Amino acid sequence: MTSDITLTPTELMRKVEAIFHAAGLPPAQAAPVARVIVAGERDACKSHGIYRIEGCLRTLKQGKVNPDATPVLTQDASAIVRVDAMGGFANAAFELGAPALAERAKTLGLAALVINDCTHFSALWPEVEALTAHGLAAIAMCPSYATVAPTGGTKALMGTNPFAFGWPRAGHPPYVFDFATSVAARGEVELHRIAGKPLPEGWALDADGLPTTDPVAALDGAMLPFGGHKGSAISMMIELLAGVMIGDMTSPEALAFLGATNVAPRHGELIIAFSPERFAATKGGLDLGRAEALFDAVLGMGARLPSTRRFTARAEADANGIHLTANEAALLDRLEAGGLRAVN
Amino acid sequence: MTSDITLTPTELMRKVEAIFHAAGLPPAQAAPVARVIVAGERDACKSHGIYRIEGCLRTLKQGKVNPDATPVLTQDASAIVRVDAMGGFANAAFELGAPALAERAKTLGLAALVINDCTHFSALWPEVEALTAHGLAAIAMCPSYATVAPTGGTKALMGTNPFAFGWPRAGHPPYVFDFATSVAARGEVELHRIAGKPLPEGWALDADGLPTTDPVAALDGAMLPFGGHKGSAISMMIELLAGVMIGDMTSPEALAFLGATNVAPRHGELIIAFSPERFAATKGGLDLGRAEALFDAVLGMGARLPSTRRFTARAEADANGIHLTANEAALLDRLEAGGLRAVN
Repeated sequence: MTSDITLTPTELMRKVEAIFHAAGLPPAQAAPVARVIVAGERDACKSHGIYRIEGCLRTLKQGKVNPDATPVLTQDASAIVRVDAMGGFANAAFELGAPALAERAKTLGLAALVINDCTHFSALWPEVEALTAHGLAAIAMCPSYATVAPTGGTKALMGTNPFAFGWPRAGHPPYVFDFATSVAARGEVELHRIAGKPLPEGWALDADGLPTTDPVAALDGAMLPFGGHKGSAISMMIELLAGVMIGDMTSPEALAFLGATNVAPRHGELIIAFSPERFAATKGGLDLGRAEALFDAVLGMGARLPSTRRFTARAEADANGIHLTANEAALLDRLEAGGLRAVN
Repeated sequence: MTSDITLTPTELMRKVEAIFHAAGLPPAQAAPVARVIVAGERDACKSHGIYRIEGCLRTLKQGKVNPDATPVLTQDASAIVRVDAMGGFANAAFELGAPALAERAKTLGLAALVINDCTHFSALWPEVEALTAHGLAAIAMCPSYATVAPTGGTKALMGTNPFAFGWPRAGHPPYVFDFATSVAARGEVELHRIAGKPLPEGWALDADGLPTTDPVAALDGAMLPFGGHKGSAISMMIELLAGVMIGDMTSPEALAFLGATNVAPRHGELIIAFSPERFAATKGGLDLGRAEALFDAVLGMGARLPSTRRFTARAEADANGIHLTANEAALLDRLEAGGLRAVN
């Protein structure tokens, strides 16, 4: 029986890469996906940690991702940087495009990175953090597959459509948020089903479009957007900007393409980067201290900044390693030994 | 006694302009403000209709807006267009900057309009609609003054920080939303106070930071963001991008500057415009029909698109005129006759 283990981020990275290599995913695709999974585990963001490996492998096994994809970057004098992921994972495409996006944003004040034709497995916070590391502010968004009903509607149309933002801070981790525009993530509904617990009111509709607190009925029906008609409108904005506008699949199109919600969705992504220094240049230069005054006011009244839990876990992991339970360690061993046979 | 009246939009425009001229606001500032007020009244968006005239006059009377401001546009080869409102109303600044923003967005794919040092009276939907008329998608946002507590907090810090989006449609009014990132607009709390009705749960905190349904206590305390911590995070994003980044006041700074919440706030505004045609160019061109498929799906399940009520009222007003009650007509007469003496 495997026992619990503590690994450095580098050691966990090697293990996750080894699993992908054993499953036939070449290093150029495997490493960027593994980096996000290790970052998730390091930050105690379990929803994007090693738990996601099986979904990536299932997507590979079902032929819904191109393992041999080499993303292609194209750019011109405009503010749009494009990376065609060629059907591979979004992660390699983002890593290719991010430096070009940062350069364009610093040159023009703001710029956009479009990732087309990717299989999307990723939290968005690693991406906005990659841009805050350049001193940029960033917004990232993408569709998903149709699992969320518009407010006032009865059937799934939009995806859980994540929306993320990052702001650079001096001497602190960045101000970062990254959330689903559904009231809860689909994984949380799953966790209620597994635990046999009813959902809170307002999370979901059943297959007839009626409110339900039964997680099984909810998974067969639709989730609801956060914040009523306002969150619903933001989710639709994401379908339009990061689906229709970039010429890539909307959430209903992605669901039709895949025919299932247990593999990573195929669509595109839109990331907008801003150079606060360029924006503030004509007003006496950027004063990051004014942002800090806002954060201090939040903390001073006992409220929290988003991502605080992740940054605390990160500091702990960097100092003392990433702790995996015996079950988690066994999962890694099983996936490495089994390759694609280990998932169904 | 005045009776109720029906005016064409042009007739109402003349009346509103006459009020501003009588109060000493020159035509270059008066006309853009009047256009938004008439558009609000025409669209039955009463919160930005003639009801707002008194607030504009009060701001003028208290010397919190520069009536003689001539906004100044500066631009370079970057994606940032800047208009210094010179302490005048935002509206004239927006009208000056919008064509330059549209040109930059069409040339570069996306661009930003920064309005600095303006007195902000406006809904944001007239602005995003001005950009959808150019075939562009647009996001607009601005701070306000500190009246909203962060989720988990106890005191007002952020403003009601509106967030608006527009998407161009062929043969239909655009897809547009424009909402406060507070759970309700401050005016709605006022309306509950006037009606002597308790607020719904979850709208507000009292001066001690405790939840309250008493509108008087709420006006003395803080409103809450929509959608819990997610709406709170979006509101903070607006403080950072449309306050700190553009070198203009955040909501707490605007409140400190004004010392009151009954005059229009002084701050800046950020508008981002996207050319969907440029974005989609490398993916076979823009297919607006894919957006229509989303809208059809929403309508097909009995849900509504945002702004539908406004567009219905607009069609009615364009066909049959804008109806004003006797009280509303009397207000216009009183304000025109009284000039700045008519407000306190």
